[in-house]
Amino acid sequence: MINELVKKIQKLQAPVVVGLDPMLSYVPEQVQKKAFAEYGETLEGAGEAIWQFNKEIVDKTWDLIPAVKPQIAMYEQFGVPGVEAFRKTVEYCKSKGLVVIGDVKRGDIGSTSAAYAAGHLGNVQVGNSRLTAFGEDFATVNPYLGTDGIKPFIDVCKEENKGLFILVKTSNPSSGEFQDRLIDGRPLYEWVGEKVAQWGETHMGESYSYIGAVVGATYPEMGKVLRRVMPKSYILVPGYGAQGGKAADLKPYFNEDGLGAIVNSSRGIIAAYKQEKYAHIGAANFGDASRAAVEDMIADINSIF
Amino acid sequence: MINELVKKIQKLQAPVVVGLDPMLSYVPEQVQKKAFAEYGETLEGAGEAIWQFNKEIVDKTWDLIPAVKPQIAMYEQFGVPGVEAFRKTVEYCKSKGLVVIGDVKRGDIGSTSAAYAAGHLGNVQVGNSRLTAFGEDFATVNPYLGTDGIKPFIDVCKEENKGLFILVKTSNPSSGEFQDRLIDGRPLYEWVGEKVAQWGETHMGESYSYIGAVVGATYPEMGKVLRRVMPKSYILVPGYGAQGGKAADLKPYFNEDGLGAIVNSSRGIIAAYKQEKYAHIGAANFGDASRAAVEDMIADINSIF
Repeated sequence: MINELVKKIQKLQAPVVVGLDPMLSYVPEQVQKKAFAEYGETLEGAGEAIWQFNKEIVDKTWDLIPAVKPQIAMYEQFGVPGVEAFRKTVEYCKSKGLVVIGDVKRGDIGSTSAAYAAGHLGNVQVGNSRLTAFGEDFATVNPYLGTDGIKPFIDVCKEENKGLFILVKTSNPSSGEFQDRLIDGRPLYEWVGEKVAQWGETHMGESYSYIGAVVGATYPEMGKVLRRVMPKSYILVPGYGAQGGKAADLKPYFNEDGLGAIVNSSRGIIAAYKQEKYAHIGAANFGDASRAAVEDMIADINSIF
Repeated sequence: MINELVKKIQKLQAPVVVGLDPMLSYVPEQVQKKAFAEYGETLEGAGEAIWQFNKEIVDKTWDLIPAVKPQIAMYEQFGVPGVEAFRKTVEYCKSKGLVVIGDVKRGDIGSTSAAYAAGHLGNVQVGNSRLTAFGEDFATVNPYLGTDGIKPFIDVCKEENKGLFILVKTSNPSSGEFQDRLIDGRPLYEWVGEKVAQWGETHMGESYSYIGAVVGATYPEMGKVLRRVMPKSYILVPGYGAQGGKAADLKPYFNEDGLGAIVNSSRGIIAAYKQEKYAHIGAANFGDASRAAVEDMIADINSIF
């Protein structure tokens, strides 16, 4: 799957991923109204609204982008119908040939991590049937519990040719509270990055590992160091756009081959129709606004090369 | 909710929580067969099997215990029908008066953490309706992202009188890889524990904070230190029983008032009928085996006082 992701990025010249993080407040009124007319102002109605919203954005952008990253929290808040909207979104994106990164930030130990891995990346045995629950291609994972938490995920990734992006240095202001603390003279995120590189060696694709890392766009100096620490790990970069990361800051996240990083934008793409720049396109054509924003993002990021 | 939990623990003289982590392999054949007869060997069939399994265990133990801790990974692996089984389990346990600790180990930032908090502990706005998605009383949370990740959870907890257990020192063998590394001479878990104490001060119950911590039973020396670092935080203690933690090791997790800790057992209770000790009760009466195991666990833990 990492080989496929790299190929798609090269073919489309687009090291970007669209974050499908649908707040209900992003969903245009006509989409909400239609969903509520059918299902009421219920969790089912909310699930239908975000699913229809996603579908339109995917329909208008899928040919430009290699990957999407649905953030499961935005679905989970709507309970079981929200999780069903997540499942449908994953399934639909895969049917469009998109690589799906499940932004689930799961992390536990042993059989519990194995269960998360089975549900999100693998299969589960029920009687004599082998079934797929969600079936993303990649999942984001939290490293706080150490190798016991990561290895069950990697085991499933090996069986299924799937991959991970492990949190190393997150994009938020307080990420330094623990991640930047010095251990034997080096910050925790470097130690985590080193582990990611080691874990990555155990599951290599053609030029990059199946085991990648999350490093926020908001910390380019740290990105530079982490690029060296994990030369074979793809870096998933959140924090571009709405969170303040700029294209000029992104250079250090890439290797000299122009590969090695994929930059996420969520709000900046899916709620583009709300920005002054795209407002003329109108809420009725929100998918077209997202397409225009994707085109602009790709041009912006390619300007650094 | 922390006040309620403390009162229930005192009334029942039972500082224990039953981990509802239903692997399909724990579910007796007759329960699986019945579910598969109705729904086939499908995700729905698996969801029904684990729900019926849980229901029987809850029916046979609810009067002995203050709380349950469903581990959502075990449900998520069965996709949407699994998550529906989680929801029904939470709802049913609450209808029995049990405190429900959602072992979800979520952790993200800003609006994403807020969405998890709304889904698991709070409410979500859909049009003019305010709806509950899962509605646990407590959730476990991962601290790696720092205050930005925790504060949105605490905000919801304050509104709803709900609480958290934040991972500090986990029970697994490799938890030390990052958690034990020394920062200015003190291990990371102590720094995290100190933050938990600070966060806890912002949301206090009568005698304990709504913001608790997870500290594994397998590290009693560290439990002793962390008890001092977080005197007002309830400690949720996994790792007793199947993971090797013994009652004698649990003393340091409690305060002098005999309170301050709640000990989890999952496999040891829910799959008790598979143990030699309870095998005579038989798989047909697996709920009675769980009840016997709960009684033994309570006696074992109370033996330390």
